[in-house]
Amino acid sequence: MQIGLIGLGKMGGNMAERLRLGGHKVVGFDFNKETTAKLTAAGSVGVDSLEDLVKNLEAPRAIWIMVPEGKPVDDTIAKLKPLMQKGDIFIDGGNSNYKDSIKRHDALKAEGFEFVDVGTSGGVWGLKEGYSMMIGGDEDVVSKLTPIFETLAPSATTGWGRTGPSGAGHFVKMVHNGIEYGMMQAFAEGFAIMDAKKELNLDNAHIAKIWQVGSVVRSWLLDLTAEALAHNPELTGIAPFVPDSGEGRWTVFEAIDLNVSAPVITESLIRRLRSREENNMTDRMLSVMRNAFGGHAIKKD
Amino acid sequence: MQIGLIGLGKMGGNMAERLRLGGHKVVGFDFNKETTAKLTAAGSVGVDSLEDLVKNLEAPRAIWIMVPEGKPVDDTIAKLKPLMQKGDIFIDGGNSNYKDSIKRHDALKAEGFEFVDVGTSGGVWGLKEGYSMMIGGDEDVVSKLTPIFETLAPSATTGWGRTGPSGAGHFVKMVHNGIEYGMMQAFAEGFAIMDAKKELNLDNAHIAKIWQVGSVVRSWLLDLTAEALAHNPELTGIAPFVPDSGEGRWTVFEAIDLNVSAPVITESLIRRLRSREENNMTDRMLSVMRNAFGGHAIKKD
Amino acid sequence: MQIGLIGLGKMGGNMAERLRLGGHKVVGFDFNKETTAKLTAAGSVGVDSLEDLVKNLEAPRAIWIMVPEGKPVDDTIAKLKPLMQKGDIFIDGGNSNYKDSIKRHDALKAEGFEFVDVGTSGGVWGLKEGYSMMIGGDEDVVSKLTPIFETLAPSATTGWGRTGPSGAGHFVKMVHNGIEYGMMQAFAEGFAIMDAKKELNLDNAHIAKIWQVGSVVRSWLLDLTAEALAHNPELTGIAPFVPDSGEGRWTVFEAIDLNVSAPVITESLIRRLRSREENNMTDRMLSVMRNAFGGHAIKKD
Amino acid sequence: MQIGLIGLGKMGGNMAERLRLGGHKVVGFDFNKETTAKLTAAGSVGVDSLEDLVKNLEAPRAIWIMVPEGKPVDDTIAKLKPLMQKGDIFIDGGNSNYKDSIKRHDALKAEGFEFVDVGTSGGVWGLKEGYSMMIGGDEDVVSKLTPIFETLAPSATTGWGRTGPSGAGHFVKMVHNGIEYGMMQAFAEGFAIMDAKKELNLDNAHIAKIWQVGSVVRSWLLDLTAEALAHNPELTGIAPFVPDSGEGRWTVFEAIDLNVSAPVITESLIRRLRSREENNMTDRMLSVMRNAFGGHAIKKD
Repeated sequence: MQIGLIGLGKMGGNMAERLRLGGHKVVGFDFNKETTAKLTAAGSVGVDSLEDLVKNLEAPRAIWIMVPEGKPVDDTIAKLKPLMQKGDIFIDGGNSNYKDSIKRHDALKAEGFEFVDVGTSGGVWGLKEGYSMMIGGDEDVVSKLTPIFETLAPSATTGWGRTGPSGAGHFVKMVHNGIEYGMMQAFAEGFAIMDAKKELNLDNAHIAKIWQVGSVVRSWLLDLTAEALAHNPELTGIAPFVPDSGEGRWTVFEAIDLNVSAPVITESLIRRLRSREENNMTDRMLSVMRNAFGGHAIKKD
Repeated sequence: MQIGLIGLGKMGGNMAERLRLGGHKVVGFDFNKETTAKLTAAGSVGVDSLEDLVKNLEAPRAIWIMVPEGKPVDDTIAKLKPLMQKGDIFIDGGNSNYKDSIKRHDALKAEGFEFVDVGTSGGVWGLKEGYSMMIGGDEDVVSKLTPIFETLAPSATTGWGRTGPSGAGHFVKMVHNGIEYGMMQAFAEGFAIMDAKKELNLDNAHIAKIWQVGSVVRSWLLDLTAEALAHNPELTGIAPFVPDSGEGRWTVFEAIDLNVSAPVITESLIRRLRSREENNMTDRMLSVMRNAFGGHAIKKD
Repeated sequence: MQIGLIGLGKMGGNMAERLRLGGHKVVGFDFNKETTAKLTAAGSVGVDSLEDLVKNLEAPRAIWIMVPEGKPVDDTIAKLKPLMQKGDIFIDGGNSNYKDSIKRHDALKAEGFEFVDVGTSGGVWGLKEGYSMMIGGDEDVVSKLTPIFETLAPSATTGWGRTGPSGAGHFVKMVHNGIEYGMMQAFAEGFAIMDAKKELNLDNAHIAKIWQVGSVVRSWLLDLTAEALAHNPELTGIAPFVPDSGEGRWTVFEAIDLNVSAPVITESLIRRLRSREENNMTDRMLSVMRNAFGGHAIKKD
Repeated sequence: MQIGLIGLGKMGGNMAERLRLGGHKVVGFDFNKETTAKLTAAGSVGVDSLEDLVKNLEAPRAIWIMVPEGKPVDDTIAKLKPLMQKGDIFIDGGNSNYKDSIKRHDALKAEGFEFVDVGTSGGVWGLKEGYSMMIGGDEDVVSKLTPIFETLAPSATTGWGRTGPSGAGHFVKMVHNGIEYGMMQAFAEGFAIMDAKKELNLDNAHIAKIWQVGSVVRSWLLDLTAEALAHNPELTGIAPFVPDSGEGRWTVFEAIDLNVSAPVITESLIRRLRSREENNMTDRMLSVMRNAFGGHAIKKD
């Protein structure tokens, strides 16, 4: 089928290519003209304005938005709306907050448009292996997009599905990322413990490789870790600094709002915050307090 | 090759069968005579005494011990020793503490015996899929056992390896289980958050299935979870009560002894303890304290 | 000086009385007419409408609002505004979110009114011991209210202070409550550990009493705990169920928004959530997973 | 009464002085001859050998040992025993593990000696304010030492008590320190959150002072913190590095052994471990993993 694609970055660009390979007509827009030129060169239709994007698609249109969450999504929708027709479908495939998605769905629906939220996972691997997609939205609208999902997904019948009404796609993707934080932290701690056990002289790269087959912890994250460790077993040159994308903290906020105790996902987020704190204030406070009541020596800066 | 096997329970029995299917001569002993009879019926050699076990194996012997950790392992070694010859190999394939394994290795070595510690993972799936084995011990001794490991493992070249000197097998298996605790808790929290989001009416069984392919959290644990949820989506009849086998707490103790901060593995253990606390004392204390300073109402039993 | 007081509940009623005893003219309003009658009987001026409240005070007026946070505060301000004059001071002494307080300050300021936020701590003890007050607002406005603060506080010079501009009072009170959660949880865990050490037959009530003098953990919370344990050493009849008022979760949200890692305050909140989860979903998930990979028995409901 | 005192360091020296001021005859020994000379100069009896210590005391003797836990305590007891008589009392006032204390009690008892374990808190403040003492041992033996405890304690009737049989003193002191860790961490987090809220320009020193009177968090730790912040409000020159004395980790081990979930005390310990980890391994692992699955940029060393 035909599909418009806005945002041709790391994720969007690869998705366009996977869709083209799957036989779809992709009309792509990006603020970067080189990027759109590349798209055209690859056999899709790269355009330089939203007007051209809309013109190159037949109604009812489906336009997949792949831009940073928040204002960029709202801005894109606002600019597109006057160009589009009732019945056209907006798809937000980025990392938006599910609450925003529900609001956008309801507002667009009221004006006669359709809106679908797709939590998309796949990173740099999606072009080759396919994208995991968790989809929220009205059943009939999601249904119309089936050919797109079947192509983007790892296979026509796996790795994607409608998880519920509007918001359910981004909500499930958010929780997915929360779980991911916890799994990553669990692995990182385990490898750190083995690294510290100097007298056994353990080889983390070798152990990761052993665990890849048959162990209880076998997983895609372990596969990637094993490969990374094979290339850099001592993690040479890597700083202990871990960003967080936002979905982890949303998961924590949501858990608390729902009165669900989720200590491991929460602690995984907290450790990322900790990795970025310089000259840690809590630790300096503790040092001062120990000195105050016990006369314990303070380590100076 | 030939191998003796002591302990033919859930794990040991299946291992004997996998070894037999792999062309090895298995001589097996268990306190339960029905179990040894079954082994004989299946085509291996079931014996009713340690004497017979030793007699049925040619020196240098390799005897795999698959009994509960602690005293049972010591008792088994003590009984076997007088029956065996210098150069014979003891293999502890159970969930022993690595510190015990190092002590056993050193004591046996001093008397002319060999000892290898094998952290074995595989649960109820090992017979079919093979066992993950993390092996600690002297290099030449481990080397002699290669045919056994190649058969028990998922394949001759995957899922097993010598991870270091004596103790390294059980140490790495211990950490493996610690990571497993963290991964399990992360998944459990994620599904609990989705379960609590009633207005989105999410279907955990369906979501688990979607995640199995292409997602970042894809893993064997997720595969098993998806299958379990498919059969019992509401977890009907399951009590919120989670035992811990011992390796989790050893991992926590070890991390602290090594001065490695491992909050997620630790918290995963703590949550299992929490699941078994009845009429929780901390919560009752908190309730009383809130009442004392703020006059907040106390919920009565 | 003169002061209006809206909300004569557990906190407000006692504050009115402490102010009266301190020589101030208190005009009090509550939706409950019995409560206002009681106030009049005690020697203050109880009124049955906001109109009467305002009429009974000379401009520039100071009206202390002591109602539940959120809509009730907004509603009260909205009803009062048409009755009041430029230069009159609104004081929010309740547990409002500091972000709301900043918004209210700015909106009222734009209309010529003044607004001060006071984080008030004191619970059932304030009448006798005085109230701890953390005050946010414009310096000159706070200054005008000094006689009120000097009376409500434990003493004219202790236990109160302006902590910064608008919002700073409720922000500091919020953090105060977060710390309180952590201290309470630390004590509760300690007493739970001692309670579990059956062979030493420890007497928590006696130990709390010993700690009250000379120990590092001596504190007001310990004093209250000691008294509570003296009356009910076995916590008979107390359910393990711990509400949270809202300030704890705000502290957690704020810490994350500020990228400050605050694991102990966060975990203290999480444990309160945990205390209220029935038939815990995470634990049931873990039980099912253990069974799935290891064949471990499931405890049934 | 008469008392021997071994170990005249920061704690022991001050205790000797408080005992002397209380009218007791103190015979003190230390490996540092200057220290013993100082004791003599102050009006007590400083001796240079254990032989002299024992000779200067009348039977039945009471000797208070104030040396580092572990081997130093065992060595001291071993050297003293041949010099002493049946019925003499050994007092371990240091930070020993309660399990060691129970063993020492039982072994000494079997040889006709007495042993009492005293968890002693007081730090640099004990001389002036008195020591908090949690005492474990046989009732009649503890009773004989009453005059000593009454003098060392904040007052004859407060701040000390027999908490149970042998081991109960050191056990309760251990838990006391665990609670202390949690309280300290809670305060440190709270002040860190306020420090990070730059737009409110909060003054932690001022806030600590306000909280000292009337707040729920008022406590001795807060008093000390307020004083420390008054002298160094920006914590200038303080490194974020927090040692742990050992009692915190024992509390964590004990909680796990007792199957008591104690997340806040545990996390407080973990954060101290974290403060001492350089080039944090878990964080570097996480950075590598994020790059591997999502192509996220790695911050380089």
